[in-house]
Amino acid sequence: MNIERPPLTPRLQAQLQDWLAEDLGRGDLTASALGGRRAQASWIAKQQGVFCGGSLALRLFRLLDPELEAECLVPEGAAVQSGDTLLRLDGQATALVGAERTALNLAMRLSGIATATAALVRELQGSGVRLADTRKTTPGLRELEKYAVRMGGGVNHRLGLDDAAMLKENHLAWAGGIEAAITAVRASAPWPARLIVEAETDQEAVDAVTAGADGVLLDEFTPEQLTQLVPRLRQLAQARPGAGSVVLEASGLQPSQLRAYAATGIDLISTSAPVTRSAWLDLSMRFS
Amino acid sequence: MNIERPPLTPRLQAQLQDWLAEDLGRGDLTASALGGRRAQASWIAKQQGVFCGGSLALRLFRLLDPELEAECLVPEGAAVQSGDTLLRLDGQATALVGAERTALNLAMRLSGIATATAALVRELQGSGVRLADTRKTTPGLRELEKYAVRMGGGVNHRLGLDDAAMLKENHLAWAGGIEAAITAVRASAPWPARLIVEAETDQEAVDAVTAGADGVLLDEFTPEQLTQLVPRLRQLAQARPGAGSVVLEASGLQPSQLRAYAATGIDLISTSAPVTRSAWLDLSMRFS
Amino acid sequence: MNIERPPLTPRLQAQLQDWLAEDLGRGDLTASALGGRRAQASWIAKQQGVFCGGSLALRLFRLLDPELEAECLVPEGAAVQSGDTLLRLDGQATALVGAERTALNLAMRLSGIATATAALVRELQGSGVRLADTRKTTPGLRELEKYAVRMGGGVNHRLGLDDAAMLKENHLAWAGGIEAAITAVRASAPWPARLIVEAETDQEAVDAVTAGADGVLLDEFTPEQLTQLVPRLRQLAQARPGAGSVVLEASGLQPSQLRAYAATGIDLISTSAPVTRSAWLDLSMRFS
Amino acid sequence: MNIERPPLTPRLQAQLQDWLAEDLGRGDLTASALGGRRAQASWIAKQQGVFCGGSLALRLFRLLDPELEAECLVPEGAAVQSGDTLLRLDGQATALVGAERTALNLAMRLSGIATATAALVRELQGSGVRLADTRKTTPGLRELEKYAVRMGGGVNHRLGLDDAAMLKENHLAWAGGIEAAITAVRASAPWPARLIVEAETDQEAVDAVTAGADGVLLDEFTPEQLTQLVPRLRQLAQARPGAGSVVLEASGLQPSQLRAYAATGIDLISTSAPVTRSAWLDLSMRFS
Amino acid sequence: MNIERPPLTPRLQAQLQDWLAEDLGRGDLTASALGGRRAQASWIAKQQGVFCGGSLALRLFRLLDPELEAECLVPEGAAVQSGDTLLRLDGQATALVGAERTALNLAMRLSGIATATAALVRELQGSGVRLADTRKTTPGLRELEKYAVRMGGGVNHRLGLDDAAMLKENHLAWAGGIEAAITAVRASAPWPARLIVEAETDQEAVDAVTAGADGVLLDEFTPEQLTQLVPRLRQLAQARPGAGSVVLEASGLQPSQLRAYAATGIDLISTSAPVTRSAWLDLSMRFS
Amino acid sequence: MNIERPPLTPRLQAQLQDWLAEDLGRGDLTASALGGRRAQASWIAKQQGVFCGGSLALRLFRLLDPELEAECLVPEGAAVQSGDTLLRLDGQATALVGAERTALNLAMRLSGIATATAALVRELQGSGVRLADTRKTTPGLRELEKYAVRMGGGVNHRLGLDDAAMLKENHLAWAGGIEAAITAVRASAPWPARLIVEAETDQEAVDAVTAGADGVLLDEFTPEQLTQLVPRLRQLAQARPGAGSVVLEASGLQPSQLRAYAATGIDLISTSAPVTRSAWLDLSMRFS
Repeated sequence: MNIERPPLTPRLQAQLQDWLAEDLGRGDLTASALGGRRAQASWIAKQQGVFCGGSLALRLFRLLDPELEAECLVPEGAAVQSGDTLLRLDGQATALVGAERTALNLAMRLSGIATATAALVRELQGSGVRLADTRKTTPGLRELEKYAVRMGGGVNHRLGLDDAAMLKENHLAWAGGIEAAITAVRASAPWPARLIVEAETDQEAVDAVTAGADGVLLDEFTPEQLTQLVPRLRQLAQARPGAGSVVLEASGLQPSQLRAYAATGIDLISTSAPVTRSAWLDLSMRFS
Repeated sequence: MNIERPPLTPRLQAQLQDWLAEDLGRGDLTASALGGRRAQASWIAKQQGVFCGGSLALRLFRLLDPELEAECLVPEGAAVQSGDTLLRLDGQATALVGAERTALNLAMRLSGIATATAALVRELQGSGVRLADTRKTTPGLRELEKYAVRMGGGVNHRLGLDDAAMLKENHLAWAGGIEAAITAVRASAPWPARLIVEAETDQEAVDAVTAGADGVLLDEFTPEQLTQLVPRLRQLAQARPGAGSVVLEASGLQPSQLRAYAATGIDLISTSAPVTRSAWLDLSMRFS
Repeated sequence: MNIERPPLTPRLQAQLQDWLAEDLGRGDLTASALGGRRAQASWIAKQQGVFCGGSLALRLFRLLDPELEAECLVPEGAAVQSGDTLLRLDGQATALVGAERTALNLAMRLSGIATATAALVRELQGSGVRLADTRKTTPGLRELEKYAVRMGGGVNHRLGLDDAAMLKENHLAWAGGIEAAITAVRASAPWPARLIVEAETDQEAVDAVTAGADGVLLDEFTPEQLTQLVPRLRQLAQARPGAGSVVLEASGLQPSQLRAYAATGIDLISTSAPVTRSAWLDLSMRFS
Repeated sequence: MNIERPPLTPRLQAQLQDWLAEDLGRGDLTASALGGRRAQASWIAKQQGVFCGGSLALRLFRLLDPELEAECLVPEGAAVQSGDTLLRLDGQATALVGAERTALNLAMRLSGIATATAALVRELQGSGVRLADTRKTTPGLRELEKYAVRMGGGVNHRLGLDDAAMLKENHLAWAGGIEAAITAVRASAPWPARLIVEAETDQEAVDAVTAGADGVLLDEFTPEQLTQLVPRLRQLAQARPGAGSVVLEASGLQPSQLRAYAATGIDLISTSAPVTRSAWLDLSMRFS
Repeated sequence: MNIERPPLTPRLQAQLQDWLAEDLGRGDLTASALGGRRAQASWIAKQQGVFCGGSLALRLFRLLDPELEAECLVPEGAAVQSGDTLLRLDGQATALVGAERTALNLAMRLSGIATATAALVRELQGSGVRLADTRKTTPGLRELEKYAVRMGGGVNHRLGLDDAAMLKENHLAWAGGIEAAITAVRASAPWPARLIVEAETDQEAVDAVTAGADGVLLDEFTPEQLTQLVPRLRQLAQARPGAGSVVLEASGLQPSQLRAYAATGIDLISTSAPVTRSAWLDLSMRFS
Repeated sequence: MNIERPPLTPRLQAQLQDWLAEDLGRGDLTASALGGRRAQASWIAKQQGVFCGGSLALRLFRLLDPELEAECLVPEGAAVQSGDTLLRLDGQATALVGAERTALNLAMRLSGIATATAALVRELQGSGVRLADTRKTTPGLRELEKYAVRMGGGVNHRLGLDDAAMLKENHLAWAGGIEAAITAVRASAPWPARLIVEAETDQEAVDAVTAGADGVLLDEFTPEQLTQLVPRLRQLAQARPGAGSVVLEASGLQPSQLRAYAATGIDLISTSAPVTRSAWLDLSMRFS
């Protein structure tokens, strides 16, 4: 089981502060009704799903009450049932009320993504094909939403425009063809950067492999097309001087077609659905 | 038609920069394949819905190319059909490619919320009851997501914990009853702050009005209960010394029940569904 | 007695750092003469007044010496006499010297405001009328100066342009009259936002109440005018459909006239004098 | 006439944004009543005094409307009469209303300081003695308040703890005497840093000069004491090997005693009164 | 010739401001001697070398004078001779003096790196082996120093710990061997991330290739060892199922040995010398 | 021995975070191979020199592991031999690996400067003349590089344009001569600011002293010229009314000429060589 929690980078630290400030504004107007009291609360799952964001929640509460006593009862990425208790919190009432909404919002969003990812990953079980995400992520949440995808069992595609080079139709046209485009990128990119080409036809895919691409994104191909094309691309790759393998990725499919695509010999299927089409997982906080 | 665009606050300005940086990281690795070329592109709706985020998109592109020539072809909050052209852009190819994903991500998310809001608002048409949002919003996007709700025809509830005082079960228990809680809040809050009490039973609602609440959030009542309770609460409110009216809000219902609730005499129905359960509106960018 | 201390928002935390940096610049040039020594100091009131800012002072010292041992001997908002000891500090000499001026500057300014507020509040004692502040505050110190007003016994008016809507002469003229202005604001503002209208004549006040204002700011009226006008406005308010009460506030008066105005039946008197015309309360720090 | 305007450092630029944000919060709730209209306004002095902060005000308005047309009608540091027109503004109504309060607050505070400074400087006219400020300044406004002192005709003392070394009683005690303290500071401070010693007795002043201080702050001496002491200190200074002159500064006096102190032969008189005891200069903004 | 200029990321933009602020502090004390005068200046090379940083310099000057007229006379990465004119500037004297030192410091440092890189690249000319940099860079200047390496003809290695995975001795020991380490990294890293293993013996290199590494860093091998090892590693790589090629990089050598290493069949030689052992290129600014 | 460590200003604190983020980017890709393990490491000098930056290194590691146990085995500014152990670290393996490169880069750069400074200071030993730095420092590292100069035994010149006024040829020309320039600066600068004039001829130096300069920078004079000029300048200074001494500084010389210049009677020699021409001191981190 994956128990990795998102590392607290300086940017994330600043974001947690900013998100609390977004809700607190000039201060919780009900704080004076809470006084200096200590309180206890727990988080309950109100739906079945994959939970993540627990350690982020604790960090948010601790920003308002550094002395908070708290624990996560389930690990990051764990499957939970409706009614499960997820977190226990014991600290200043003002802190529990002050961070409640922000912490729940974050964990509900991330758990919704992890839950949706896990459902798709189950479709691929046993096929050896991995489910990858895309760059369609909520502005500001790229790293956390991709973390949620990992917690759901998926693998991340590049995290940004600098994390691998993806050449699309326009790049090729503007650079004057695929060879010129690849030469330009290899000349200025750090040498470890992988170079991926997006292809929409068999010929484009063949050209990409021949020109030395490290990966090919096969967009909107049918399973039948891929079944024929994939072995041919693998063969071409092996024949390239000094650059044997190529990573083949399918995109542009419906979730219902996952199994059909998984049987075509590709390495990865990428989809934005867990990020762009999932509902938040329903969680609630109860004071005791 | 509402043509308001979100005002560019300093925080939003910083966020736009941060969101671009999130995707660009240490720089687009394909930029060297694009050269210093100028390019043209347009945005196309691939689904029917309510569009918003166009002026934010232009700001993102302009951060990378201050000389960009661009226009929004449809106003904020407009209904669009699949195939409609939404924006036209003409500027540095590196800027168009560099901000493409971030701008689309933002507009697709906001348009998805506006579209879902508009669908619910249509249910309430003619009833005089307004649809309100909640504090369940994506961390970092509170103000923009609430802007999208307005673009879909909804009305915003408070923007944060400081924007009105909402007393819940625990506040009342900890403060020693509803009168003590209201007194504490009125003593320290700015005088214009409204004070709302969340009620789950008739008695709680009655107590809230009697104690002088400006609004009552009636959570998980049935339409039948409300039909009986609302007139009683209005009467009590009129009888209060120096504080006649009270705003009555229903929450905790399913979208399918909207019409039934709208007929109960309440003022507002609040729901998080357009934010927590909507899919992104599908938009794409085409280079020409 | 009011013992509330200002909550440490992220913005305030950043400001405390910035204010220390403002004085420390590239570093206290005398630090090398202080060495690694520990030192003790106390704060003494050199004037009678209302003290506040003590917990802010401790935070400033602690930013330079997290191990500092310190205590506030008087609660926030307490009346103090010349000679009273207010704080005791025990920590690194470099920290005591490094934060001394910044901490004193802040507390002297805030205590000056609290002292001046308390003097005016005493004038209103027994009248049931509250003393409110305004948006005339030192740039950067809005929230702290309004905190000082509360510590002196006053009530805060709105904290900013977003905290309630105040329609003035120009708003009404540009929007095409008071009804149009109120309609425009109600359509886009969050529903809990209160709507206040500034009036300079009886007719304007009457129109404001009739049009549904939640509050009316009666600027530069004489006590005699108010004595006649206030009951009329209250009556009109009661007669409004679904919006009984109205908050009536007087402004534009001299401190010497407070009692006369308090007898007119208004709810609040607002004045900027404690912020714009008060001297700092004299405090000093003594090393022992 | 002094027409210098404060240079727009990166910190000041960030502060101007922050100060606007402080008042605007989540956005001016009346903006929807203003629409996209253009408006004209002017600033009027409602009191006699020394005006400064005009160019800062323009920068604030321009942050909200970069196309604003505006001009300052009087130079920074000019004497103005009640009724004088100071600025003219022509731009978006939302920008004029949105920055009005922040801009006025800043200019009223700074003009109040400049006005109070000018009154004291007039007392010293012809004496050759300069009026200096202190480090008692409002947190966050150190540089602007010291700018206002210059606009009123004063001279700035050090801007922070790093801008000159001032050794006080405790420094001397902890370092083991004045010679040890001076040696420690000279060893680590940049060589151009001046070293000033605060003295409360004749002997301390004599020791300071003998030990090589560049300046002596004579705190709470009477004019009579100074008349005797100053020539002696000048003589001692001339006799020092390789360090002839010494700057002599008096502090701890009442404004009414300025002329008496000016006659004692000192170089400077420092006082915090224009910052800690001045009222804001009354200015108003009128829409036309 | 390479004419790429560093893209102005939000971080770089903030750094340029910070670097100016570092030198300007509370403001150039000589500004009052400069007045509002316009001035002209040019930059002159005082040594032969490779120039870069010109566009950064212009940005620094423009931050202080947005109206500055200026041009770079030589492209980024150009070889220059002593006496060559590099930039021409025409703008506010206060801006030219205010940014002079910061701009020169930056360009002299970067040009020193580019010059040292170019000297090493010349040694490799015709060999097909590329010169790569390392992560030994001045804190804060990583991206700019790596830009200077590219301007000198080198290729960048990974830009940070997230830009490729490099497994060293300790990683292997702690993970329980090379296979376990590679499995752990592949499970959590984005799929495009390359995986490099550092080897100090033939066996380690062989194990790395066998286990599927994308690259091997051969540290402190002699040219003779490499001549024998490299063909063996290439053969092993070709025989790997689905992962043909491997990138071989030598490190830990002296600049004088570059040619000998270039003949061993490796792909890259990495060295920190242009960053850690180069002198700044001497440039000066002359006012005319 | 000097054991001063750089004070942790808010800016430095932010920089340390930023420098870690620069290397960590979106997270160390090898972290998953390290697991939650604790590890031990030490820093070893691989060259003889002057070490500094140890406490900065500890702060960097502690930002990633607040529980880190660590100690510096040698004080800041100490001479070290090749093979000496400098630091011991015991903490999370992910923290040790995550901050390793950043911490070493910083300490190697600073130690390189301290080492080069100490070599020059040794040349001046016994002469009474101090070695000063300049404003030629790496952007972003001004304060730390000047700290390293102090650790090597040098004295800092002004830290920025605001830390003393230095009038150069152009200032004098534009202000209309040396007297006008000095008058302008004295009128607006804080009174403790020292005023230095750069001179390239005997006459300029004489004029500077006569006009009241506090210091003269004698640029590119020969030792012979200085031997004659210095006594003349000292005499002129003594004769100035009310301003006896002057600080005389030589610049523009080669390191090999230090002793010759030290014998001319000047007070200081300033050089940028330890910053612009030094190599990093070689240090390494070993895991145990």
